[in-house]
Amino acid sequence: MTPEEFRRHGREVVDWLADHMERLEDLPVQSTVAPGDVRAALPPHPPQAGEPFADVLRDLDDIVVPGLTQWQHPSFFAYFPANTSGPSILGDLVSSGLGVQGMLWATSPACTELETHVLDWLAELLDLPERFRGHGVIQDSASSATLCALLAARERATRGRSNREGVRERLTVYASDQAHSSVEKAVRIAGLGQDNLRLVPVDGDQAMDAEALARMVAEDVAAGAVPVMVVAAVGTTGTTAVDPVPAVADVCARHGVWLHVDAAYAGVAAVCPELRWVNAGLDRADSWCTNPHKWLLTGFDLDAFYVADPVALTGALTVLPEYLRNAASESGAVVDYRDWQVPLGRRFRSLKLWFVLRWYGAEGLREHVRGHVALAAELASWVDADARFELVGAPRFGLVCLRVRDLDDAGHVALLARVNATGACSLTHTTVAGRVVLRVAIGSPATERRHVLAAWELLRREAG
Amino acid sequence: MTPEEFRRHGREVVDWLADHMERLEDLPVQSTVAPGDVRAALPPHPPQAGEPFADVLRDLDDIVVPGLTQWQHPSFFAYFPANTSGPSILGDLVSSGLGVQGMLWATSPACTELETHVLDWLAELLDLPERFRGHGVIQDSASSATLCALLAARERATRGRSNREGVRERLTVYASDQAHSSVEKAVRIAGLGQDNLRLVPVDGDQAMDAEALARMVAEDVAAGAVPVMVVAAVGTTGTTAVDPVPAVADVCARHGVWLHVDAAYAGVAAVCPELRWVNAGLDRADSWCTNPHKWLLTGFDLDAFYVADPVALTGALTVLPEYLRNAASESGAVVDYRDWQVPLGRRFRSLKLWFVLRWYGAEGLREHVRGHVALAAELASWVDADARFELVGAPRFGLVCLRVRDLDDAGHVALLARVNATGACSLTHTTVAGRVVLRVAIGSPATERRHVLAAWELLRREAG
Repeated sequence: MTPEEFRRHGREVVDWLADHMERLEDLPVQSTVAPGDVRAALPPHPPQAGEPFADVLRDLDDIVVPGLTQWQHPSFFAYFPANTSGPSILGDLVSSGLGVQGMLWATSPACTELETHVLDWLAELLDLPERFRGHGVIQDSASSATLCALLAARERATRGRSNREGVRERLTVYASDQAHSSVEKAVRIAGLGQDNLRLVPVDGDQAMDAEALARMVAEDVAAGAVPVMVVAAVGTTGTTAVDPVPAVADVCARHGVWLHVDAAYAGVAAVCPELRWVNAGLDRADSWCTNPHKWLLTGFDLDAFYVADPVALTGALTVLPEYLRNAASESGAVVDYRDWQVPLGRRFRSLKLWFVLRWYGAEGLREHVRGHVALAAELASWVDADARFELVGAPRFGLVCLRVRDLDDAGHVALLARVNATGACSLTHTTVAGRVVLRVAIGSPATERRHVLAAWELLRREAG
Repeated sequence: MTPEEFRRHGREVVDWLADHMERLEDLPVQSTVAPGDVRAALPPHPPQAGEPFADVLRDLDDIVVPGLTQWQHPSFFAYFPANTSGPSILGDLVSSGLGVQGMLWATSPACTELETHVLDWLAELLDLPERFRGHGVIQDSASSATLCALLAARERATRGRSNREGVRERLTVYASDQAHSSVEKAVRIAGLGQDNLRLVPVDGDQAMDAEALARMVAEDVAAGAVPVMVVAAVGTTGTTAVDPVPAVADVCARHGVWLHVDAAYAGVAAVCPELRWVNAGLDRADSWCTNPHKWLLTGFDLDAFYVADPVALTGALTVLPEYLRNAASESGAVVDYRDWQVPLGRRFRSLKLWFVLRWYGAEGLREHVRGHVALAAELASWVDADARFELVGAPRFGLVCLRVRDLDDAGHVALLARVNATGACSLTHTTVAGRVVLRVAIGSPATERRHVLAAWELLRREAG
């Protein structure tokens, strides 16, 4: 494709997306296609000759869009939000268009330096402790951040022996029983074994019981295990519970255990001074991450991962073959982000966050987060005022968890299916203390009060 | 940003990129900034209020572009190519703009089904064996594909015990001493220990000695180790050496060892029937990957990873929390790609490959690969005809490795630095049999004969 063709078709795609944004509210939130429908609509064989660009755009409309669940829809309340925004899309377009590789500083210095810089901007916006400044790196997701933290922790605890000889002893990891599935996945990947992931009980608010953690760590040490890492969640996936990080940090300090704080969803709330309590205890954390791609207007994939001691991370992940040697790396004056992550190659992902921070500014970001927090509080007040419903925990951020009183689990599952089948909104569920709970996660940039109200009225109607 | 603002600024970015493509040839290939230059040019603090979009575009020109090494430049011959193209950029733009999550089939069915379908198209274009059809998944990179293959292999070899209890025995992995650094990285990450990565010697052509492999595996088994995986390279990073996959497969079959074939760079060559010899032995491989983001006009990150037995992969990687349960997954009728990879979340990455395959068609892709192979052959003929230079191995694909006769390693390093400092082209080096060798990797879509000729003349001039 020539630059002139790119210019023409690029404008067509921009217009197609702008049109899509404008009509998004009129589309069903959840796709209703059946398994196999999309594949059946596609030609079984690839084309021999190239096709006109217009044919691809036509198939986007006819085949792709009907098969999508619209995560950017103002009435998407499922899972956690996966925000994007105009400046993020355009920053990512610049990244795709430049097509540079940031595996080493030397392979495109701006790709590395803008990343460090923008993550420092983010650290300032969130008022993160000094220990994390200059020590940020973009991961694709919080799952990868947890894995990298675990690898650094494993090597620190075994003095590099696991990397050299393999895991040979019982290495234990701790997280609350509400922690994200990525903790178990990381424990398995890193060769520790899921039996050595110790799930700490939670209190009535679904937050980790730090005293139970202390007992479990002490017992494991007495039994000859080596505690490697504790993952504290600030905003669990189920209910946005917040583990008591300062008390957890005490336990970690006592035993020299790596403390990773997973604030994938809720960490960005700290752009608002009134929500900075989410940072409590971070001055003693070894690593921390949040996902601007969840709730900070930045498209997937952009997890911001910070470590207190980068040498612990790079020591665990560096492998240096001849074909990557270069003068800049050997000078020690630069950061090579390939040593901060699992893959070797890397996109210029900081551009999209840079575009977002500049377009919205601190004020715009605060307005964005505050709007959802206020909507969640208002929805919670409606739930609270309706005798048929009950809140499950108080909403802290943009998530409201609720149940219908006197409705059993199967009834909630059926209710959820009925609500989602309307196409008018999308919710998901979790379990709290063994009972099914419905989640309403408010976080799309396009969501207004009327969308939340409509979802609430739909819930009341379908609850019968 | 409103849809109307997106429409306006989107066109500005498209025009900016088209202009960048048009002027790319006039820019220096390698950035000449010093460490810290880019950061020093950026404001130390994030903006409080939002900034005009024009300011961001201005800083792209003034700060970012001078700090880039231009991987899409027609005279970029370093590392391996990291191709992109107009349709790839626009497919990725659609992905960013739609902002959907493909972690589960249910979270956007088209995201999953288009991926399976387009990877089947690619399998057909490359004439991959039947065992891989319907079993493809997009990874960010070949590093991640190698890690996922290793995790599946580890669990198959230990019957799921490593995932449950942790790595407790000596598990060995085999690759040639020319294998990519990601093999060692994966072995470390998976808790096997780098001491248990057994580097198999190579023959004079830098290809794995399959007889040595057979001896090493037998010795390790006799010593009580459990061989888990062999990684065979089709196109090593240093010199595009091709391991003898059929002979390696014999060894793997004898010992029930997982065979992963890493064809990150060279795998896509099979779009050309005359290069399908790269597929030899794949009908007995357990997994295989190639990177369309290297040499098939598709922007990073898009590694195409195929497995013969998806259950071995998902068995190793599945963790199912309540908040991800859904009727479609439980029906067994759909694929949930989150269980095929390390992270949970995933972009709609198949769009860019779909756009590329449709825009170029099989004919266009063949023309693209053949053009570079022909240019490499022509450069090799020039090297061969110049008594001062010598070829190191015959070029098979788009890479030419060469040395100046009677110049020592330090002389080659200095020559490389002089050539790259001109900004006229970018080369890298490797070592072969302990000696420094220069690499000329021809793979940019914009590269023409005149660019290769200019690089050759520059090399001759600087060689003195």
